[in-house]
Amino acid sequence: MKEYMGNDFLLKNDLARHLYHDYAEKLPIIDYHCHIPPQEIYENRKFENITQVWLGGHQKKADGSDYYFGDHYKWRLMRCNGVSEDYITGDMPDRERFQKFAETMEKTIGNPMNHWCQLELKKYFGYTKPINGANAQEIWDICNEKLQNDPKCTVRGLVEASNVRFVGTTDDPVDSLEWHVKIREDDSIKVKVCPSFRPDKALNVHLAGFDEYMKQLSEVSGVEITGSESCLEALNKRLLFFVSLGCKASDHGIEEIPFTGADAAKADIAFRKAMANEAVSEEERRDWQSFLMEGLGKMYYDNDVAMQLHYNAIRNTNQKMFEKYGPDTGFDAMDAHNCVHGIQGLLSALTYADKCPKTILYSLNPSDMDLVATICGCFQQNSPVPSRVQLGAAWWFNDTRDGMVRHLQILGRLGVLGNFIGMLTDSRSFLSYTRHEYFRRILCNTVGEWVEDGEFPYDEEGLKAIIEGICYYNAERYFGL
Amino acid sequence: MKEYMGNDFLLKNDLARHLYHDYAEKLPIIDYHCHIPPQEIYENRKFENITQVWLGGHQKKADGSDYYFGDHYKWRLMRCNGVSEDYITGDMPDRERFQKFAETMEKTIGNPMNHWCQLELKKYFGYTKPINGANAQEIWDICNEKLQNDPKCTVRGLVEASNVRFVGTTDDPVDSLEWHVKIREDDSIKVKVCPSFRPDKALNVHLAGFDEYMKQLSEVSGVEITGSESCLEALNKRLLFFVSLGCKASDHGIEEIPFTGADAAKADIAFRKAMANEAVSEEERRDWQSFLMEGLGKMYYDNDVAMQLHYNAIRNTNQKMFEKYGPDTGFDAMDAHNCVHGIQGLLSALTYADKCPKTILYSLNPSDMDLVATICGCFQQNSPVPSRVQLGAAWWFNDTRDGMVRHLQILGRLGVLGNFIGMLTDSRSFLSYTRHEYFRRILCNTVGEWVEDGEFPYDEEGLKAIIEGICYYNAERYFGL
Amino acid sequence: MKEYMGNDFLLKNDLARHLYHDYAEKLPIIDYHCHIPPQEIYENRKFENITQVWLGGHQKKADGSDYYFGDHYKWRLMRCNGVSEDYITGDMPDRERFQKFAETMEKTIGNPMNHWCQLELKKYFGYTKPINGANAQEIWDICNEKLQNDPKCTVRGLVEASNVRFVGTTDDPVDSLEWHVKIREDDSIKVKVCPSFRPDKALNVHLAGFDEYMKQLSEVSGVEITGSESCLEALNKRLLFFVSLGCKASDHGIEEIPFTGADAAKADIAFRKAMANEAVSEEERRDWQSFLMEGLGKMYYDNDVAMQLHYNAIRNTNQKMFEKYGPDTGFDAMDAHNCVHGIQGLLSALTYADKCPKTILYSLNPSDMDLVATICGCFQQNSPVPSRVQLGAAWWFNDTRDGMVRHLQILGRLGVLGNFIGMLTDSRSFLSYTRHEYFRRILCNTVGEWVEDGEFPYDEEGLKAIIEGICYYNAERYFGL
Repeated sequence: MKEYMGNDFLLKNDLARHLYHDYAEKLPIIDYHCHIPPQEIYENRKFENITQVWLGGHQKKADGSDYYFGDHYKWRLMRCNGVSEDYITGDMPDRERFQKFAETMEKTIGNPMNHWCQLELKKYFGYTKPINGANAQEIWDICNEKLQNDPKCTVRGLVEASNVRFVGTTDDPVDSLEWHVKIREDDSIKVKVCPSFRPDKALNVHLAGFDEYMKQLSEVSGVEITGSESCLEALNKRLLFFVSLGCKASDHGIEEIPFTGADAAKADIAFRKAMANEAVSEEERRDWQSFLMEGLGKMYYDNDVAMQLHYNAIRNTNQKMFEKYGPDTGFDAMDAHNCVHGIQGLLSALTYADKCPKTILYSLNPSDMDLVATICGCFQQNSPVPSRVQLGAAWWFNDTRDGMVRHLQILGRLGVLGNFIGMLTDSRSFLSYTRHEYFRRILCNTVGEWVEDGEFPYDEEGLKAIIEGICYYNAERYFGL
Repeated sequence: MKEYMGNDFLLKNDLARHLYHDYAEKLPIIDYHCHIPPQEIYENRKFENITQVWLGGHQKKADGSDYYFGDHYKWRLMRCNGVSEDYITGDMPDRERFQKFAETMEKTIGNPMNHWCQLELKKYFGYTKPINGANAQEIWDICNEKLQNDPKCTVRGLVEASNVRFVGTTDDPVDSLEWHVKIREDDSIKVKVCPSFRPDKALNVHLAGFDEYMKQLSEVSGVEITGSESCLEALNKRLLFFVSLGCKASDHGIEEIPFTGADAAKADIAFRKAMANEAVSEEERRDWQSFLMEGLGKMYYDNDVAMQLHYNAIRNTNQKMFEKYGPDTGFDAMDAHNCVHGIQGLLSALTYADKCPKTILYSLNPSDMDLVATICGCFQQNSPVPSRVQLGAAWWFNDTRDGMVRHLQILGRLGVLGNFIGMLTDSRSFLSYTRHEYFRRILCNTVGEWVEDGEFPYDEEGLKAIIEGICYYNAERYFGL
Repeated sequence: MKEYMGNDFLLKNDLARHLYHDYAEKLPIIDYHCHIPPQEIYENRKFENITQVWLGGHQKKADGSDYYFGDHYKWRLMRCNGVSEDYITGDMPDRERFQKFAETMEKTIGNPMNHWCQLELKKYFGYTKPINGANAQEIWDICNEKLQNDPKCTVRGLVEASNVRFVGTTDDPVDSLEWHVKIREDDSIKVKVCPSFRPDKALNVHLAGFDEYMKQLSEVSGVEITGSESCLEALNKRLLFFVSLGCKASDHGIEEIPFTGADAAKADIAFRKAMANEAVSEEERRDWQSFLMEGLGKMYYDNDVAMQLHYNAIRNTNQKMFEKYGPDTGFDAMDAHNCVHGIQGLLSALTYADKCPKTILYSLNPSDMDLVATICGCFQQNSPVPSRVQLGAAWWFNDTRDGMVRHLQILGRLGVLGNFIGMLTDSRSFLSYTRHEYFRRILCNTVGEWVEDGEFPYDEEGLKAIIEGICYYNAERYFGL
């Protein structure tokens, strides 16, 4: 029996161990897509206890109203284990909430949560025993002592200890980016922290709040928005501002990827209705989104900003819980739209205009992954960087051992794996950098297996280049860091 | 080379062998979903020969008309092997039909049928040589001798020898449940046999025979049915009767899961048309089914009855064969409806009304399994039993070694595997209890592999609890047995 | 570490090695579906250099216009590696183009292209070192020397060295088949080369050029085409001509498989519009295709010709590249239509008419494979050959190690694997016969694993029959060669 999550965790052959320990492990991290608040980096936030770091929970806004913020992956698992909301989103004491979480871990065999948490405990707190009910008090004591007293366990300490070189946050076009500005001006912060451009609210013409958002966007950009073209103009102003602060990527969270080829006049139908608070039809929404995506794609190309498309999530499925706790609290699922036609239409139109930006495609549904890999391969001609269109890393529900292996195998079969830009955390937590360790172990094991089995030539320099490329240098080149 | 289906069949590591032989193997069986006829238990049916047990075939009704009843999995394989219908649904002698089946087995490498049959031969008849043409006579002789003379090979004998504690049959709401009543009254029957409530015919407003069925339901319930609300009232009366006989679960076989949010008035449109023998449109059918499912879901909640949803089968695909042999004769296939919106709508509405029942979701299409696992995770809050919404066990075409491994891995990744309620036979045959052995071996091997690889902590008590829970105790708790 | 692509490449257990080296390796090849030009066989074409064989590229028609012909799999990989079109479809010197390809290979870990190319180098050129930038000159020299001077490296030499017994080409119904006639008349050609019937253009009523094609078909068949029925009559004449030259199979490349049950009158709507150069609606197109497929299916049955259906490809996705380079240049992807209803409708209608032909179903989307395997199993009754409806071999993007293993496992689980008709090249290249070697190794390893693990009985004769059947004899029987 192999040691539980020991030094050679997930490394099952000699070559894998060599590749990981001699190359992958030592490289810095480029975390090009995450959801951490830049304010916390600037203020070098300290955490009170491990529950606050791992679970978060019920919070109060300045105006006294409630909101809920934390790790919805962990919340889901606790719910699946029959833990009451009192311990998840409720106000039970943090120590008791942690106990419930630790006990949940005992039943989650086969779940990546075990691996993520144990890697974090080991790296940041030096703790290697299993997380369970019996060890909960010990973990609580050790972690809290460090969180309160060890400078390595502040936000900046964690980022440094993780050897992070670049962090791409996720930001709304109307955001002032004040914390990014402050970070820039603070020489003591070594890591590069840059905003990413996520204009979802401008796309969601069919949702409540669109008119209000247009007013904000108008105000912050100084552009009067009267339709799709002025909306794009306003977004372009904001994008330029983002780029001035180092923005390398945009991001879109979208149920499905629409492409109708609509022109501005057609797109404006939805706009007018939304601004008049009238219902927008499916078809009108699609026209608006199609026109905007086409315009945004061209802007991204002009500014050498990568376009990330995350799709096939169905959000806020449980209406009762949504009304109580709001979004991002653990009630989302996979969807199954066939978006190959939308992707095809969008990328073909952008290519036709000689303005196809670097693009990263993420479907939440793993049944899509072969399909997406093949459509990626259709838009690679004459690319300034190898593999301009990337099959995005295993995302969210796929961010597991099996999910990553599957991603590597599919990309290997259907693209050029050696040009993959590698992992990201997609996380709200500063402990999540071990997700890169998890990925690198899986990568080295997969590559090691192929070579040990005589399926790819053993060539020390060639393999080093592949591993180091995927772990670090490909992302550096792709994003122009 | 490992012994063919020996004592350690499918158990590839030390821990797996220990978990299986020391824990899993010894536990009784809760078979919460099957299709065996309770009459045969009560009457303690004896079988004439192994062909009658394994193949069944052409039968005569009391009125002299023909019907075809048997193991359609085996029929399909024989057809794929070029065996003529004379030996499948036709009247060739049973010995010759058995020969054709045994010869088919020689070509079915990779098919679970081999495993199912050999496990049955070994457990009930002590026979361990391969099933093939050369051994057919020997198997025929040994099995038939036992079937005719060994009391352990009667229906009750088989159930007892299999250590079965609970059997959930599948029954129509209009059924009198006479055999369930008789079994209850017979103290010599130790196994608990309870009905499950399967109101498919009440849902199928678009199919011929609906009006006739409504009349039957009206009669047996004493409720005059004039629309969707009185239909639900009649079903409720029947459900209460089922519950009085120990019913713990309902079951729905449905092509796709509709949810339109229709009210009674909208639902009644379909009803009126169906009763007048007019065609019901797709939309009208969906409204009827949506309203009924919502009403039934609440009833199930009120009576602590689990709601099973089996979907994505396309049935009776071969019109010519359907006209000749009727349903369930081996002409069904997988479908590919995306039902996440229907599931979401239904469970969200039920949750909103504080009446979300225990629910078990089974899609026949394995490409759906990740998606279904994620929607399960959205309705677990404040559940009285851990994992109220279950990712149903690998079903029908997925009831294979690979299918079960896949199910365990997906549930492990996306839920809390330790709360899984485990396997069922879904079978018409009393020999099928070895399906639980098959599952338990696969479960122990999967768990053993994870622990041996250092991916989950080795903890004797913790692992024992997981294995015993999945094999027996979780189902006992879930169904309140 | 196992030797890179050594003698036991992909053979991981003793039984696999025995089955491959003692049975599979020695059998001749039936390549029942490929795209090689029969003219090149007749003329015994010689290749100038390895770039011409492997990459092809920019060509000139007799009239001086440009076209692009070559291995689009390799073109895609080079594009993914950032190679400019100058080296792919452009006119850079062949030696430099080869260099770029060799360098691309260094990054394609996990891609079957490595295996395909190395197997070809080893078998036809005796070269075993890895393909990479450093070895490119050596490979260039060795290959070109042989291509120019070794009679075994002409087209006929390659076919003979590969032990090919049967080649099924792909041909348009209007084709004169002149090269097939010449091959027939040339006694020095030992391999049987027969046409396959691919009437895609007659089906594509919605595409430009349909009217022109109808004129050609009319001319070559001598049938005046005035609608769907006379179109079928013309196609029937051509099919009889194809059959007279040994045609054993038809082929259809179709986005989705429509079945509407339309009659001739309904089908004719699309025809009239297309002939008048009016737009044909989706529904009208489907009616036309449905009626034609039903008619063609019956013809295939009458002539004992197998019907191949290839679906779920989306072609020419990149409009700009399509206008520049035309079809089949590396810009196609997978699609995700659910075709189970179309397949069901078509095969049920043909069965109802007692005219269901031998059918081979290929979906490009691997997520469909379980589903397709189940619908195959619904139309096997009373078949003159075992498994009349076949789950087609892993196709195009699935023609990989993992894809083939998956195909074998799925067919094993859901059908009778022992009756599988085996691999094909689907290739434009005379070096591709090693694809059969690749498949046979994978087959032997998969079978070997099952038996070594005690999951299928070890029986020398039985296993020999399964392996030899799948490699050769099943196809011989199925196509009546």
